[in-house]
Amino acid sequence: MEEKEISRAVISRLPRYLHYLGELDDRGVERISSQELSEQMNVTASQIRQDLNNFGGFGQQGYGYNVRFLYEEIGKILGLDKTHNLILVGAGNLGQALAGYENFGKRGFIIRGIFDKNERIVGEKIRNIPIMSMRHMTDFVKENNIDIAVIAIPKLAAVEVAEELSTCGIKAIWNFSHVDLKVPQHIVVENVHLSESLMKLSYNIREKECRSEEQ
Amino acid sequence: MEEKEISRAVISRLPRYLHYLGELDDRGVERISSQELSEQMNVTASQIRQDLNNFGGFGQQGYGYNVRFLYEEIGKILGLDKTHNLILVGAGNLGQALAGYENFGKRGFIIRGIFDKNERIVGEKIRNIPIMSMRHMTDFVKENNIDIAVIAIPKLAAVEVAEELSTCGIKAIWNFSHVDLKVPQHIVVENVHLSESLMKLSYNIREKECRSEEQ
Repeated sequence: MEEKEISRAVISRLPRYLHYLGELDDRGVERISSQELSEQMNVTASQIRQDLNNFGGFGQQGYGYNVRFLYEEIGKILGLDKTHNLILVGAGNLGQALAGYENFGKRGFIIRGIFDKNERIVGEKIRNIPIMSMRHMTDFVKENNIDIAVIAIPKLAAVEVAEELSTCGIKAIWNFSHVDLKVPQHIVVENVHLSESLMKLSYNIREKECRSEEQ
Repeated sequence: MEEKEISRAVISRLPRYLHYLGELDDRGVERISSQELSEQMNVTASQIRQDLNNFGGFGQQGYGYNVRFLYEEIGKILGLDKTHNLILVGAGNLGQALAGYENFGKRGFIIRGIFDKNERIVGEKIRNIPIMSMRHMTDFVKENNIDIAVIAIPKLAAVEVAEELSTCGIKAIWNFSHVDLKVPQHIVVENVHLSESLMKLSYNIREKECRSEEQ
C-alpha cells in the first residue's frame, strides 16, 4: 500500500478512528457513513472522507464504510497487526502506571521485562512481569527480540540508558523523560512531554478568556 | 497582543521553544540567532523565524533574539505568567507520578488537593498534598479558586467526575482517561491519550522498515 505521502496530521488522527471503529465493531455495527462517524468523532464528514481517501478510498457511495474492514486496514497501517515486544525502564510510579495499562497488551504491545536501578526491588514483579537489574538490560533486549523500550526514568539517567539501548538492536524508544534523546537515525523516538500538553491547556484557557472578554 | 490567527501547529511548538530558551537563560546566554536555535532544536531556522514572527517579530536583524525577553513573552502567550490552582482526581500510580513532577510547580501549576474514592487513604498526603474524599471535591474547587482538574482515573468514573466538575466553576480538565469527555463549551479539555502516542510510534517503526526495504 502506498502511504508515503500521508501527512503527520492524518497519521495522528488514525488512532482516534481506530478507537471509534473498535467501539462500533464491539457493538456489532457493520457499516457506518462518514456523516455518522463525523457526529461521533466531532470531526467534519468531509475531513473524514479526505483522511480515509489517503488509504485508497475504503468507502463506497451510498453504502458507507465497512467497520471491521476499515478497523483492520487502519490497524495494519499503524503496524498493529504485529506483536511488539517491549521493555520498561523504570519501576517508579509512572512505570507502574504504564505496566498496568491493559489496553497496550490488547493492541499487541507486550511488556516482557522491567528494569530498575534499585537492586532491592529486583526479583519482584509488577502485573506478573519480572523486575530485573539494569546490568542485564542489553542482553535481555538481544535475547528476547525486544523492539521497543519505554523510558520512564529521570532525564539524566534517560540519556545514558538511551545510549546503551542504541547498541543492542532496539527499533524504538517511547520516551517519558523530559529530554531530547540523541540516538542513531534508525531508531524511532516518540516523546511524551507532559508539561507541553499542560502548557497547551494553559494557552487554551487564556485564549478562551480573551474571547469571552471580547464578546 | 494579537494572536487569534495562530495555528495549532505553531502553538504546539511554543512549549519546545520555551524549554530551550529556559535552558539557555539558565546557562546565562543572553541572545541567540535563529540559526543557533535551529541547530539545537532540530527545526529549520526559517521555521523558527516564521513561528516567532507570529508574535510580532521579537528578533532583530544581525542581533538575533533576546533570550530572556523571548522566554517571557512565550510564557505570557502560554498563560504561564499566572499561577494555576489544580486538583488531582485519582491517587493511583499515575496520580502519584503526576503529583511528583516538580516541573509542573515550577511552571506555576500548583496541585492544591488530591481526591480519591478510596476512603482508606483519605487523610494521607502525597508530596505534602492532602488526599481528600470525593464527596468534598466540588466544594473544594469552589472555595479554593481551582481552575484545572487533572483526571487520572478509569474511564467510566472519569465521565461522572467530569460531569460533576462542570457545575462548579472549573476552567479546564487535563484528561488522562481514554474517553472523550462531554463538558460544556466553556471548559477546555486537553486529552493525554497514551495509546495514541504508542500507535504513532508503531506507525513510525513500520514506515522506517518499509523505507529501508526499498533501499
